[in-house]
Amino acid sequence: MPVPGPGYSITVRVEAPPSTTAAGDLTSAIGRAGGVITAFDVVESHADRIVVDITCNALSADHANDLTVLLNELPGVNVRKISDRTFLVHLGGKIEVSSRVALANRDDLSRAYTPGVARVCTAIAENPEDARRLTIKRNSVAVVTDGSAVLGLGNIGPEAALPVMEGKAALFKKFAGVNAWPVCLDTQDTEEIIRAVELMAPVYGGINLEDIAAPRCFEIEARLREKLNIPVFHDDQHGTAIVVLAALRNAMRVVGKDIADSRIVVCGVGAAGSAIIRLLQHKGPADIVAVDVDGIVHTGRGDTDPNLRSIAEATNAEGRTGTLADAVRGADVFIGVSAPNLLRAEDVASMNSDAIVFALANPDPEIDPLEAQQHATVVATGRSDYPNQINNVLAFPGVFRGLLDAYSHEITDDLMVAAANAIADVVDGERLNASFIVPSVFDSAVAPAVADAVKRAALADRAGDPAPGGGTSLPWAMAEDLEF
Amino acid sequence: MPVPGPGYSITVRVEAPPSTTAAGDLTSAIGRAGGVITAFDVVESHADRIVVDITCNALSADHANDLTVLLNELPGVNVRKISDRTFLVHLGGKIEVSSRVALANRDDLSRAYTPGVARVCTAIAENPEDARRLTIKRNSVAVVTDGSAVLGLGNIGPEAALPVMEGKAALFKKFAGVNAWPVCLDTQDTEEIIRAVELMAPVYGGINLEDIAAPRCFEIEARLREKLNIPVFHDDQHGTAIVVLAALRNAMRVVGKDIADSRIVVCGVGAAGSAIIRLLQHKGPADIVAVDVDGIVHTGRGDTDPNLRSIAEATNAEGRTGTLADAVRGADVFIGVSAPNLLRAEDVASMNSDAIVFALANPDPEIDPLEAQQHATVVATGRSDYPNQINNVLAFPGVFRGLLDAYSHEITDDLMVAAANAIADVVDGERLNASFIVPSVFDSAVAPAVADAVKRAALADRAGDPAPGGGTSLPWAMAEDLEF
Repeated sequence: MPVPGPGYSITVRVEAPPSTTAAGDLTSAIGRAGGVITAFDVVESHADRIVVDITCNALSADHANDLTVLLNELPGVNVRKISDRTFLVHLGGKIEVSSRVALANRDDLSRAYTPGVARVCTAIAENPEDARRLTIKRNSVAVVTDGSAVLGLGNIGPEAALPVMEGKAALFKKFAGVNAWPVCLDTQDTEEIIRAVELMAPVYGGINLEDIAAPRCFEIEARLREKLNIPVFHDDQHGTAIVVLAALRNAMRVVGKDIADSRIVVCGVGAAGSAIIRLLQHKGPADIVAVDVDGIVHTGRGDTDPNLRSIAEATNAEGRTGTLADAVRGADVFIGVSAPNLLRAEDVASMNSDAIVFALANPDPEIDPLEAQQHATVVATGRSDYPNQINNVLAFPGVFRGLLDAYSHEITDDLMVAAANAIADVVDGERLNASFIVPSVFDSAVAPAVADAVKRAALADRAGDPAPGGGTSLPWAMAEDLEF
Repeated sequence: MPVPGPGYSITVRVEAPPSTTAAGDLTSAIGRAGGVITAFDVVESHADRIVVDITCNALSADHANDLTVLLNELPGVNVRKISDRTFLVHLGGKIEVSSRVALANRDDLSRAYTPGVARVCTAIAENPEDARRLTIKRNSVAVVTDGSAVLGLGNIGPEAALPVMEGKAALFKKFAGVNAWPVCLDTQDTEEIIRAVELMAPVYGGINLEDIAAPRCFEIEARLREKLNIPVFHDDQHGTAIVVLAALRNAMRVVGKDIADSRIVVCGVGAAGSAIIRLLQHKGPADIVAVDVDGIVHTGRGDTDPNLRSIAEATNAEGRTGTLADAVRGADVFIGVSAPNLLRAEDVASMNSDAIVFALANPDPEIDPLEAQQHATVVATGRSDYPNQINNVLAFPGVFRGLLDAYSHEITDDLMVAAANAIADVVDGERLNASFIVPSVFDSAVAPAVADAVKRAALADRAGDPAPGGGTSLPWAMAEDLEF
């Protein structure tokens, strides 16, 4: 059951009679209709009327509309203006490009632009790796989408996807100081997406693929990893897998089980589900059963999709068949990255003791977490209004901070496991319990811990290569001037 | 003759004996070798030595090196560290992405990101033009290059071009509040460049092409103008043409001539020269003679390049032939956008009385301006160390500010003439003279004047279309909340 939230917050300016009961009439009308008032400001007061700004949270856009109609129908009340606080936040865009250099006078211009810039260009032409020191490549990530699988909205196209990519960029900066720039591509052709990213790569130190539909996203990621010498991360796959692994590790600590000895059901084998399965298997075989719309995935189904075939071969060693209900019976863990309301309370009741349920479908989970709690020991969702929110923002900012600081060329499974462990370890033994298996998204310790773990893993992966910061052929500037 | 400038500014940290003459020895050594000291800071003082930071401007990178070697050879002096101030300015990049929204708590996150952002995405999916209100498209420009014709450096590739594009982006922000983002493409194939820009266009309200070699740049610009519904500007063509037209209008006022009655020689028919010729002809025929490496361009030369052929047909109505010297004899105006030292003093002397010479090759002009001044009434260059600097920064920030504010879909010749007139008019009659035909690049009146003129021209061009800000189907927000 949804509750009114700040995602649907409106401010309504109304004229009302100056009677002593007017304020009460307004607020009780909103309350009766299910709105939650968060502010009541009198902006004008006259002998014959008052003007009030009422700010309230609604359940939905339609509900917000109903509330204003209701106010307008009150005796003597006149709605003058409605502002939607969410739309106001987005107006004109949520990020901007700022200058890091002074440009106040001719000397500044001579150094930052012509003629001084020519020497910097020449240095990079002679040693292209110096672009990682002398340009924004040092700290910039492209957030790339084709708008084909945006949030729960589906294939809404590149323009409509832009507000999400901007939000992502704002989060990159807030949590890890990374400059992220939205790249919303006006094509959904795999080859064109790959080529466009390849062509724009010189400016970036990393690529974050976002909200690209499966199975296209797998090929795009794999091919770009082959072609580019900068790390390519698909947040829907790798970000989700990292945070799920972190949460699962801590959930296992809570119930005293081990991933290697557990049976795990993964419901949904799109981008997230496939990546979760692969990361869970990275450290050795795990007993995983994958489920999609056709039921349990097994080698006898005759699937033709290469991703499904490889999952069928890598999971379900016991050759189970049947429905989701069959899969979860006796299982230790349910991980849902699929669709709303697929899992029933009796399914959870049929799981092994101390069951773990991650119902991550957004915005509506596979099962209402309050229902799941009645039979499971640990429950997590993607929602912010329940405990244990599995949110990718725990991973991607720190992951890219670490990759950029290591001048990394690639992302390995070891590196993703290191990131997951770093997130899990932020929750120390004293705070760990069934309602607190992952840190808050606002915990400022998370991104630095992830960044440090990722940087170490990246440097370990390429032991033998020149250390970051080394190997420069820059004229003049001595090494110590080039440290960040 | 070049002079030491801040583009080659170094800071050298030296240990020297604590004698009373040490400081004098250091500074006079630099001075004798042609360096110009701009700062002398004692950072440590001991009984047996002092440590000093000497900051000085050199003529070139080699000269700066010579100066440090010289210091190190002085008796008792030991160079400990050299920093190059130009490189330090560029370290880590000159621009960054900043968040314009608060992300301090859960309510902020609910509005800027999920779940609130979904409503904004939906609004744009329903009415794509709303992307110009609700996203960075409102105020963002792509600075696109293939790195094929960067400054005077030539074809140095996309990574090495990035410092220039970053500098451009910083100037866009400083002078006009525009968010510009570098797009350095790893291809020099015309079709690939066109397609890449087309694919990335959803994020941007305008495209600024930069440092792309001729003749490829002409086709890229023309084709993108056909394909995109946002304005496409090639700064090397249109920016240069606008500023040249502004300067020429004021130079004509100084000498009391008229463009329509003058003979104008344009030397160099690459991107800049071709665009200058076209813009000069926009308001009617002008007597223009174009010159390239093969001499005067005329229809009898049998050129096969389409750009050269169209210039041959549109200029030189009298069918002149010969060399540059033949072309300038008796001419009123010389506009050079070609190469160093092509024009001799005797050529200028052979021009009509009150000759105007714009020697714009960078960094070294077609003729030393001091030489040209002996025979011409008005002389301008692209250099910052002479009067009358013809610098594109006078045009592009204000042009894009006006285009974005008008929600413009295209750039017309009328619009470019309006921009040129706005620049010219910043120099009022009291200040106008032969040494002040264009305003300073730091004159804060220029960009707003250009923006206003461009916005008016853009709105006039599309009279009948919905006014900017109109036609929105945004839910909730009333028109007044959408004004910028």
